Amino acid sequence: MKFQRPKGTRDFLPDEMIKREYVINTIKNVFVAYGFDALETPVFEDWKLLAAKCGEDIKEQIFRFKDKADRELGLRFDLTVPMCRVVANNPQLPKPFKRYAIAPVWRYEEITAGRKREFYQCDIDIVGSSSMEADVECIAAAVDCFKKLGFKKFRIKINNRKVLEGFLQLIKKRIEIETALEFSSLEVFRAIDKLNKIGLDGVKRELKKIGMGEEQINELLKVITIKGSYKDVLEKGKKLLKGIAVAEEGIRELEEIFKFSKIYGISDLLVLDFTLARGIDYYTGPIFEIEVETEKNIGSVAGGGRYDNLIELLGGRPTPATGISLGIERIIEIMKEKKMFDLPETKVKVFVAAVNEKVKEDAIKIAQKLRKENISCQIDLMNRSLTKQLEFADSLGVPYVVVVGKKELDKNVVKIRNMKKREEKEIKIDELVDFLTRLFSSKNSRVESS
Amino acid sequence: MKFQRPKGTRDFLPDEMIKREYVINTIKNVFVAYGFDALETPVFEDWKLLAAKCGEDIKEQIFRFKDKADRELGLRFDLTVPMCRVVANNPQLPKPFKRYAIAPVWRYEEITAGRKREFYQCDIDIVGSSSMEADVECIAAAVDCFKKLGFKKFRIKINNRKVLEGFLQLIKKRIEIETALEFSSLEVFRAIDKLNKIGLDGVKRELKKIGMGEEQINELLKVITIKGSYKDVLEKGKKLLKGIAVAEEGIRELEEIFKFSKIYGISDLLVLDFTLARGIDYYTGPIFEIEVETEKNIGSVAGGGRYDNLIELLGGRPTPATGISLGIERIIEIMKEKKMFDLPETKVKVFVAAVNEKVKEDAIKIAQKLRKENISCQIDLMNRSLTKQLEFADSLGVPYVVVVGKKELDKNVVKIRNMKKREEKEIKIDELVDFLTRLFSSKNSRVESS
Repeated sequence: MKFQRPKGTRDFLPDEMIKREYVINTIKNVFVAYGFDALETPVFEDWKLLAAKCGEDIKEQIFRFKDKADRELGLRFDLTVPMCRVVANNPQLPKPFKRYAIAPVWRYEEITAGRKREFYQCDIDIVGSSSMEADVECIAAAVDCFKKLGFKKFRIKINNRKVLEGFLQLIKKRIEIETALEFSSLEVFRAIDKLNKIGLDGVKRELKKIGMGEEQINELLKVITIKGSYKDVLEKGKKLLKGIAVAEEGIRELEEIFKFSKIYGISDLLVLDFTLARGIDYYTGPIFEIEVETEKNIGSVAGGGRYDNLIELLGGRPTPATGISLGIERIIEIMKEKKMFDLPETKVKVFVAAVNEKVKEDAIKIAQKLRKENISCQIDLMNRSLTKQLEFADSLGVPYVVVVGKKELDKNVVKIRNMKKREEKEIKIDELVDFLTRLFSSKNSRVESS
Repeated sequence: MKFQRPKGTRDFLPDEMIKREYVINTIKNVFVAYGFDALETPVFEDWKLLAAKCGEDIKEQIFRFKDKADRELGLRFDLTVPMCRVVANNPQLPKPFKRYAIAPVWRYEEITAGRKREFYQCDIDIVGSSSMEADVECIAAAVDCFKKLGFKKFRIKINNRKVLEGFLQLIKKRIEIETALEFSSLEVFRAIDKLNKIGLDGVKRELKKIGMGEEQINELLKVITIKGSYKDVLEKGKKLLKGIAVAEEGIRELEEIFKFSKIYGISDLLVLDFTLARGIDYYTGPIFEIEVETEKNIGSVAGGGRYDNLIELLGGRPTPATGISLGIERIIEIMKEKKMFDLPETKVKVFVAAVNEKVKEDAIKIAQKLRKENISCQIDLMNRSLTKQLEFADSLGVPYVVVVGKKELDKNVVKIRNMKKREEKEIKIDELVDFLTRLFSSKNSRVESS
């Protein structure tokens, strides 16, 4: 009987893992450079925690189950909610608490080419700081990740939930309608968030469904689609929203973000886009998304925002917080598409081949010597002939084979074969480790260092 | 409302993560040196796959649930079964397929100090080779992991399921009894496996329960508790089991294991122990456990064995396989107990402190310069006074603070403060990166390299 892997999941075979590890290590190194520490939480959480503040759409997508003591649990749908639980339950943690987490999450969604039901999130969050510098630091760290990965063209879309809320108040004040439905701001945000997926007409339909009047809808969409430079859009918004307290606070935050972005050297990448809404309920202030340009289209590869109420809602002290999440799967797909990977097929550097059974013991000892020096190597475990051993090494993509033979051993040498160039040369056994160490420290140093 | 983390799980805060990452990276580097490639599979699998060959005890412990399309799923209880599914479904993978996996698994067990319901397994497996060299290579790699982690005293317990099966045949032949119960070898193995937990009398009770006669039990326990050097125990077993085909094959395998262990330089650590049974059903040949000595007791820190039928049972071609699993949680507990960790409290190396608001921009720019050079640093995000910034850096355990002040900036210098020694000195801004790079490359290189 054959068993399939569960729908919506993937296996990552070694060649894929090399790409994943490279991307994850590159990102992790940037996170550590920015002073973020690691935090790890369980894959499942109390169902009530997960359902507390995620919004209806995601609540429906949670993999939910009971343990043998009938406790209601669910697989985490993001890494932010579990982190907030930890912060709420550990008030002793020094603030700001800067943590990163790179781990899988689960959502029962429609499966598409790029979207599975198990996928990685890759988050940094700064907990305890209400300064917009914290938001900008998260964005700057994410930008550095993309630069280190080799991305050249990208932009940072910014908005603020307070400003969106202000626009909604403005519209309600300007255009009074009688409606049977009492809609919430969150419902409006969720509808606007779908703009890229369902287009302007789709958003209009959604807004109508939740109870907004047609005139209100048109006016709202008019004001939030203002285009121009960050400064222009900000000025226009500021004028429109004058006198609406919550919006004025949001505008001030957007000004601060611009100020800090200049210092961090990323202000050129900022695009102020009032249509950016983000799908998750818990955001309270600035929200942001990073997009990269590809030949085919523009893809969002990171997103985040400020969530100043979440920790308190989960039983902690009032604690401001902000963060950004990078979409590793998406990033890897784009990097493959753009042929940005320059990695070996395998981490195995050397195959130690014994010419026959008689020199097997010597071959093992040479392999063990290399391994002690952290030179990745394999040795034949199948009693194969030399030809078959070379074929196997080739099938793995191993770049060098050390050939151990009786004649050479008598001279204290081995042959070393460059599998790409199909060249062989003799080298003294005593000098083998040094030779290979030099060889590999000059090559593929990107992979070595990770 | 406060939310607790689910029973039987743990959160790993940053100071714990530093230990975990150090252990995991050390082990991973050894695995890579031995030529193992990474493989990652989903956290949940088809329920039927998990239930297929795990044994009744573990089957009861699986976290089982349904997805929204009513598919029966379960969280994986080990990493071997999912790997075998991948091999069964990907016959194109070159053999031997050498893979490592370091990831959490879940079992609903009684919670004790050392045992949780979510825990990591850390596996290497060699698929496709029936040679005992493959078993020895796995054991040798595990031994190297323990050496690299700083363990000095340990031993490798070895047995073989074929030999155990042989002893059972011997006993049944020698002592015929009439029993109402038809017991299987697996039931006997499971009972013997509990020896360390429930003692000799406990095992006797278990064996009686499954239907063995008292005389049989006494005879079985007599022959499997033979003590002595590997060679002595092997010779005694060989004599006893002469003529029992399956046992003779097992004995030959144990001889091979000793032969290869000598070449790999680990034969001194081998203990042949016929009472070793291992709890999991799928083993078919050699089984092994590594134990380390601590002040209090001897703890098993790794275990594994050969499972030549599992891949075929899961729908693949007949494929021999063997592997070993390291118990990371256990290893970390012992290393803490024995004070074997010598790691910093945080990976953050530098805190860049601004004397006041006016030099904030300069401080950010210095921090960004350090980050570009992969020097982990934090900067104030709370508008704190200099004193408070130093206190915060101290609370995190950051070893150096760079103090940025107006007077110093005018001279193109900053102060650098050693937080442990409480010493300060001035350094030119242009030379800061070089100075810190030299400083940190000489110190804590164990953490840096990971």
